Amino acid sequence: MLTVHVELGERSYPIHIGSGLLAQPQLLLPHLEQKRVAIVTNPVVGDFYLARLSAALTALDVAVAPIVVPDGEAQKSWETLNTIFDRLLAHRSERKTSVIALGGGVIGDLTGFAAAVYLRGVPLIQVPTTLLAQVDSSVGGKTGINHPLGKNMIGAFYQPRLVLADTDTLATLPDRELSAGLAEVIKYGLIRDSAFFTWLETNIEELLARQPEALAYAVRRSCELKAEIVGADEKESGVRALLNLGHTFGHAIEAGLGFGAWLHGEAVAAGSVLAARLSQRMGWLREDDLQRIVALFRRAKLPTDAPELGVRRYLDLMALDKKVEHGQLRLVLLERLGSALLTTDFPQDLLERVLESPVSTQAPAGRTARA
Amino acid sequence: MLTVHVELGERSYPIHIGSGLLAQPQLLLPHLEQKRVAIVTNPVVGDFYLARLSAALTALDVAVAPIVVPDGEAQKSWETLNTIFDRLLAHRSERKTSVIALGGGVIGDLTGFAAAVYLRGVPLIQVPTTLLAQVDSSVGGKTGINHPLGKNMIGAFYQPRLVLADTDTLATLPDRELSAGLAEVIKYGLIRDSAFFTWLETNIEELLARQPEALAYAVRRSCELKAEIVGADEKESGVRALLNLGHTFGHAIEAGLGFGAWLHGEAVAAGSVLAARLSQRMGWLREDDLQRIVALFRRAKLPTDAPELGVRRYLDLMALDKKVEHGQLRLVLLERLGSALLTTDFPQDLLERVLESPVSTQAPAGRTARA
Repeated sequence: MLTVHVELGERSYPIHIGSGLLAQPQLLLPHLEQKRVAIVTNPVVGDFYLARLSAALTALDVAVAPIVVPDGEAQKSWETLNTIFDRLLAHRSERKTSVIALGGGVIGDLTGFAAAVYLRGVPLIQVPTTLLAQVDSSVGGKTGINHPLGKNMIGAFYQPRLVLADTDTLATLPDRELSAGLAEVIKYGLIRDSAFFTWLETNIEELLARQPEALAYAVRRSCELKAEIVGADEKESGVRALLNLGHTFGHAIEAGLGFGAWLHGEAVAAGSVLAARLSQRMGWLREDDLQRIVALFRRAKLPTDAPELGVRRYLDLMALDKKVEHGQLRLVLLERLGSALLTTDFPQDLLERVLESPVSTQAPAGRTARA
Repeated sequence: MLTVHVELGERSYPIHIGSGLLAQPQLLLPHLEQKRVAIVTNPVVGDFYLARLSAALTALDVAVAPIVVPDGEAQKSWETLNTIFDRLLAHRSERKTSVIALGGGVIGDLTGFAAAVYLRGVPLIQVPTTLLAQVDSSVGGKTGINHPLGKNMIGAFYQPRLVLADTDTLATLPDRELSAGLAEVIKYGLIRDSAFFTWLETNIEELLARQPEALAYAVRRSCELKAEIVGADEKESGVRALLNLGHTFGHAIEAGLGFGAWLHGEAVAAGSVLAARLSQRMGWLREDDLQRIVALFRRAKLPTDAPELGVRRYLDLMALDKKVEHGQLRLVLLERLGSALLTTDFPQDLLERVLESPVSTQAPAGRTARA
């Protein structure tokens, strides 16, 4: 096991990463305010891990109330949130009863928001079981639900007391979800760490083959990069916005196609390619680096062609982005591979041209074997 | 105008109290991050004050989006919250667009919670227009909505940037609402300041007659006491709980009768009398002080008899109280007039006896003229 720390003063917390951690509930014990927890999960993850985690906690005299909600992005809704509140109340869950999110990004975001607002806030522990949740969504305190008009429109910054990432859970992950997680992993390389990007180019097959050391390193390096950024800018007044590379486009794709049609990571991959293409047209990102980016997403079995929603629809959806200021869209773009910036400084016609033909026809298939 | 400060480090903020403040929008200007605001109010308050505040802000080049929601405690619901989100999105309200709550406790709690979670948090300004909101609910950052099972079950601690209490608005307040506000004013005297309680005994008729100096002093002293307590314990891990005198009983009354049947202040008055009666039976509060308390609430035209919900129903509703710990009810009781404590140390049968006959028949009518 290794531990990455998120430094946020009195709200600091550890991320434990390793194999077999679900069977080590003593790792949770120091973070519980009372020997009672509620575990929120979905039926799929629950089938695999709920019994294991519950039994381990019960063996330590911790009373466990399980709360199972349906699977999928469409569950990041007020209705499902209310189901969680009803169950917490039925279990007489108190201000000191911890709520544990056991699952992927949807469970983490939804449960995190429930914990943030139930009784005006109760202790939260994240136990991410997907690659995407382990490398990104369980860390940093962003929680929330979707509004029909936009992704994550309603939510809170609410930090967990602990993140427990058991890398064994990645063994049972569907291929599509593994790839979706790799989209956020690749993102860290793109915005902040070109050496990590190069490492990913070298190790992408090992990651897809779920080679444990490769996965553990990818999770650890991603968490280190995220912890660094969140520690510097918890509420996204500056550098944290860079984590949103591809997300303004990606959220428009998710909302435009209806939540759940694409996985979040898939939308981020296609969205990052749009951001990279705009960056290249701006004269910032080199053409060959754009091709490396497209190639790596493809090798990770991620979509690099965004859906053709039409320029107007893209712009309407993107106008609701949380980073819009004074009515002006702000985008995370790439100055070069390994360095991102948040900017309003892009010509509208270049953006529209990219949205007009969101398909990456320029990337020659031959290049996908690069690295 | 006078100003009371709530000291919470970088989240500190002023409470401006005075006459004619709604016509002085330059008081708001230093607290706006951009020259755009959304004002949430209800039709009644809106008719009186929305045009005045909007015009004043518009004159300073601030763009105003008005959002009017229906009146009453029943509006502290997810449905009404969602109406606010829809309108904020329709107005393209951004992360730096301030949300102003113009109204009483319901508008303040609901709007405060909307601001806490819209885009994961946007700047909030409280402009309380009822006595209850000016002396209590607009200060200290408690926001939230009701769950059918319990009051304020879903919410957030979210501090405003500014509280602007224009005491002129109390002139248009219905008598019943004025009295409801006095319940919280009296509460401050009971839990922390017996001299203020005595001042209230002397000045209750002036307050009911809306004598401006008396009202201004009551608002100011209440805000001072609340600011002191919130500054010491923002998230209610200790002393802040004492502000809940009468509220565990009161919330049970509100939920038991259906939200909106009694005003919150009315339930707090009857609930405080129950707490005082239990305190007297415990041998803490003197009988003559109990009679003074009942008399003052009566003179303030507040109910001192709680509804007969039945012991079982009271206990069930109170079991959902946010202060319950390890399944154990914790109550705010009075050691003596002017000093409260949070305790589990009361015999269950004494509590049940008080709930069995929640009518204050002991208080001789002749004592109501005391002071």
